[in-house]
Amino acid sequence: MKVTVHRKAHFNAAHRLFRKDWDDQRNRDIFGKCSNPNFHGHNYELIVSVTGEIDPETGFVVDMKLLKDLIYSEVETYLDHKNLNVEVEEFKEMNPTAENISVVIWNKLRPNLKKSLSLSVTLYETPRNFVTYDGS
Amino acid sequence: MKVTVHRKAHFNAAHRLFRKDWDDQRNRDIFGKCSNPNFHGHNYELIVSVTGEIDPETGFVVDMKLLKDLIYSEVETYLDHKNLNVEVEEFKEMNPTAENISVVIWNKLRPNLKKSLSLSVTLYETPRNFVTYDGS
Amino acid sequence: MKVTVHRKAHFNAAHRLFRKDWDDQRNRDIFGKCSNPNFHGHNYELIVSVTGEIDPETGFVVDMKLLKDLIYSEVETYLDHKNLNVEVEEFKEMNPTAENISVVIWNKLRPNLKKSLSLSVTLYETPRNFVTYDGS
Amino acid sequence: MKVTVHRKAHFNAAHRLFRKDWDDQRNRDIFGKCSNPNFHGHNYELIVSVTGEIDPETGFVVDMKLLKDLIYSEVETYLDHKNLNVEVEEFKEMNPTAENISVVIWNKLRPNLKKSLSLSVTLYETPRNFVTYDGS
Amino acid sequence: MKVTVHRKAHFNAAHRLFRKDWDDQRNRDIFGKCSNPNFHGHNYELIVSVTGEIDPETGFVVDMKLLKDLIYSEVETYLDHKNLNVEVEEFKEMNPTAENISVVIWNKLRPNLKKSLSLSVTLYETPRNFVTYDGS
Amino acid sequence: MKVTVHRKAHFNAAHRLFRKDWDDQRNRDIFGKCSNPNFHGHNYELIVSVTGEIDPETGFVVDMKLLKDLIYSEVETYLDHKNLNVEVEEFKEMNPTAENISVVIWNKLRPNLKKSLSLSVTLYETPRNFVTYDGS
Repeated sequence: MKVTVHRKAHFNAAHRLFRKDWDDQRNRDIFGKCSNPNFHGHNYELIVSVTGEIDPETGFVVDMKLLKDLIYSEVETYLDHKNLNVEVEEFKEMNPTAENISVVIWNKLRPNLKKSLSLSVTLYETPRNFVTYDGS
Repeated sequence: MKVTVHRKAHFNAAHRLFRKDWDDQRNRDIFGKCSNPNFHGHNYELIVSVTGEIDPETGFVVDMKLLKDLIYSEVETYLDHKNLNVEVEEFKEMNPTAENISVVIWNKLRPNLKKSLSLSVTLYETPRNFVTYDGS
Repeated sequence: MKVTVHRKAHFNAAHRLFRKDWDDQRNRDIFGKCSNPNFHGHNYELIVSVTGEIDPETGFVVDMKLLKDLIYSEVETYLDHKNLNVEVEEFKEMNPTAENISVVIWNKLRPNLKKSLSLSVTLYETPRNFVTYDGS
Repeated sequence: MKVTVHRKAHFNAAHRLFRKDWDDQRNRDIFGKCSNPNFHGHNYELIVSVTGEIDPETGFVVDMKLLKDLIYSEVETYLDHKNLNVEVEEFKEMNPTAENISVVIWNKLRPNLKKSLSLSVTLYETPRNFVTYDGS
Repeated sequence: MKVTVHRKAHFNAAHRLFRKDWDDQRNRDIFGKCSNPNFHGHNYELIVSVTGEIDPETGFVVDMKLLKDLIYSEVETYLDHKNLNVEVEEFKEMNPTAENISVVIWNKLRPNLKKSLSLSVTLYETPRNFVTYDGS
Repeated sequence: MKVTVHRKAHFNAAHRLFRKDWDDQRNRDIFGKCSNPNFHGHNYELIVSVTGEIDPETGFVVDMKLLKDLIYSEVETYLDHKNLNVEVEEFKEMNPTAENISVVIWNKLRPNLKKSLSLSVTLYETPRNFVTYDGS
């Protein structure tokens, strides 16, 4: 019996959408006001979904307490109250779109989960814009 | 790396569930108070989900601004503040259930997206009743 | 010790904003697409708030079960799945704006509550538009 | 055309996570404060998702009214305002984790749906912890 | 310039509505299924609202971090994952209705706030039932 | 009959809590990670509440369309996708706390409303932290 457990978390961050190799005008044309050189920011809501067999001894797929702690140590301490472009290694050369942030989060979490478990992450940039990545 | 991007939109509309070829009593038996001949209405919430590869240049699967504009031009202007039974072509001969509305919306959006992208729509008729259609 | 108890309910209805003594053009100018002669509709969310002393015997200001039943019999059966303009007495001569609907609901509930209790109603026409009326 | 229809419901219940064959200390070590011998409780939110072909006559995959009644008779009357460990047969020998509750709910609903329909249930234990089970 | 700052928190607990001096039948008549002798439970959502002048030096009415810590130490550690009837002093002789719980929470917080500040608490027992108490 | 109408809006912005006349260490001591010199950001949700008599001709307290346009022109264009500290005049010398932002918004809207109307603004910095200011 395979069940998916979902855990919700959140973090706040500043970012700017732009490419270094484009000038400000082209960045403005493609990324609109999201390209403001002074940055803007979001309350990111994150749902981490882990699928696997129920452990018959505990009734858990994963211990939610451990999953919560993992999200805290790998994602929240890494991204919360940060300027993504300036302070997060991956985004020094990569545009911090919701799509790319979801891949970075998936890559941070995946090595910490048993191979028998599947992982999907859903990231809300705003209540109206969100993305899902499952490693495929 | 395939990511799904989701965009939320909404529209308000009136409708009535009924079949022209049934009398009012039979419509009332099958569709209950949703068959009120004077119509009732809903705040429909719509989630449009598009899956595809991240464009390495922009970091986007699709430009959310373009997706938002597409939903506006194809769905919101077509359905918002309308009487679905009276004013929307597809529902002159088809019952405007949430299921059928989701198919109509999918059919309006699909030709406007690149073939390499997958499309799914989720439509909330009320906070407690909603449907999902992905073209399969 | 005065406490306010709040109970949430909902109903769906069709309506149209217009004045009979104005022509369609003037109604369209003032009420925009809300004046569509074929009606549109909403999922109305209602919060009924009652303030009074806690009864030391039960620990209740009012019995929530009774309040729920009162909202059902006075408001939901009266407005749910109705066309407000066509089927609700008060709106045959009065525009069914959220403001006016909140006053009608307050007037339906007030006589059924003890004089020592205060009453306020909050009515969501959409998640972004809502009104509050407390009889003052 | 296969569409998934979703219906939301809820129930409140008390529970305790523990195994009879472990002592209180070991239960506390593994299940933390969720193992409090005096019980704690939750407002469980449930989404029942049924996938199937749209009936061309009605426009329904399933009649939402019948699905609502089925959830009421099979799930809500069985679990609402209950102590899961003490009053629900399945949890006398099985830990009432969200994972296990979702399986019990799926097993209660499945026999009441036509074979051509697929079933998935999502159960929120809190707004931040939830699980999904689809019988696979 | 007086501003109200609001902080949201939550806790889960089991409870039962009943009076020791009434028999089970009378408790059942008045409190319905909420009187189940085996308890049921809720995810309580709490909003603590504090009104006062903005400190011109910091721009704060109160430091949200301190308010969060106060709610944690006074309310969450006191009520979270507890059986209110069995484990919380105030409810050994008082019915743990939402009304009474809101008064207990207000009384726990009030002495820890400066006299110049006003305090109000809103407690959600379910998403549809909630109460507000401001000490008046 | 006085009714309050509420309109919800939102904007995204970056900010940093700090005082120029304090060094980084003292800013960090008082404002914690909110003082990160590289900024962080939020999705701000705004509720604008206007109280007044219902106009018997239209059934409106204020025309929601005009209120929506006013919020757009005075607040959203002024704050959306901005760095509050760097790009917004008022916050060049004042700390952009939620409290101070709510006062700035109130001051931008107040002169545009008739004197007979009352105004209150509620600003969510996160789903858990929010403030209310009504000019008193």
